[in-house]
Amino acid sequence: MTGERRAPEILAPDECLALLATVPVGRVAFTDRALPAIQPVNFVMDGTDVVLRTGHGSKLAIAMRRAVVAFEAGAFDPVTHAGWTVTVLGESRTVTDPAELARLDALPLRVWAGGRRDHYLRITGRYLSGRRLRAAAA
Amino acid sequence: MTGERRAPEILAPDECLALLATVPVGRVAFTDRALPAIQPVNFVMDGTDVVLRTGHGSKLAIAMRRAVVAFEAGAFDPVTHAGWTVTVLGESRTVTDPAELARLDALPLRVWAGGRRDHYLRITGRYLSGRRLRAAAA
Repeated sequence: MTGERRAPEILAPDECLALLATVPVGRVAFTDRALPAIQPVNFVMDGTDVVLRTGHGSKLAIAMRRAVVAFEAGAFDPVTHAGWTVTVLGESRTVTDPAELARLDALPLRVWAGGRRDHYLRITGRYLSGRRLRAAAA
Repeated sequence: MTGERRAPEILAPDECLALLATVPVGRVAFTDRALPAIQPVNFVMDGTDVVLRTGHGSKLAIAMRRAVVAFEAGAFDPVTHAGWTVTVLGESRTVTDPAELARLDALPLRVWAGGRRDHYLRITGRYLSGRRLRAAAA
């Protein structure tokens, strides 16, 4: 651990969106049976919206049918401690419109976990916030 | 993306705790002014409890004074998609007991971000759950 502590730098919205496009995995915070829950998901950005795929009837699909959720993605270097984090706060909903589904099918959204996951969820980004932590001075 | 999809493997509690000890950063899901929030934090495990440090009066310190929160840590390989995720659900509280604070000061909990961060929070782990995703078959 180097001695100099650094104040986090606030990121502009366009920087937040550019950084979100560089990582494949983020995490959704939602409510599951009245308790806080958090789950890693792979995602793609669609403008300022976050698009996820999950299984029909999954915990995530049920919780995110119509809810306000927080989504976070980021990266930190374990050695230099440099990194960034961006949070998107917005309303989530299930995508059901056939034309929208066809368009989302063309996005580069890969499914990592097993099982059928042809259920699309969209988080309409309302508040975007991000911070960057630069590497500590030696 | 390799063709074979893999079902996530459920991890035993001792595997969850062993994995949590291997990463320095996790994320807390909490409620901030009635809205879901998510924040990366560095942490150490103290038995089955998660210990964090933050600044007095920070959003996290206020939200976690006495709350039920979810904490998640994990790691995924962007190439093989192998990885794991562990969630701890529990009650969070501010640590105020001098003897406990002295003991926590001796834990290897480093502060990455700037500012005074001598406020300790403990999440008493009640429910531990974890999943592992193995590398896809080629």
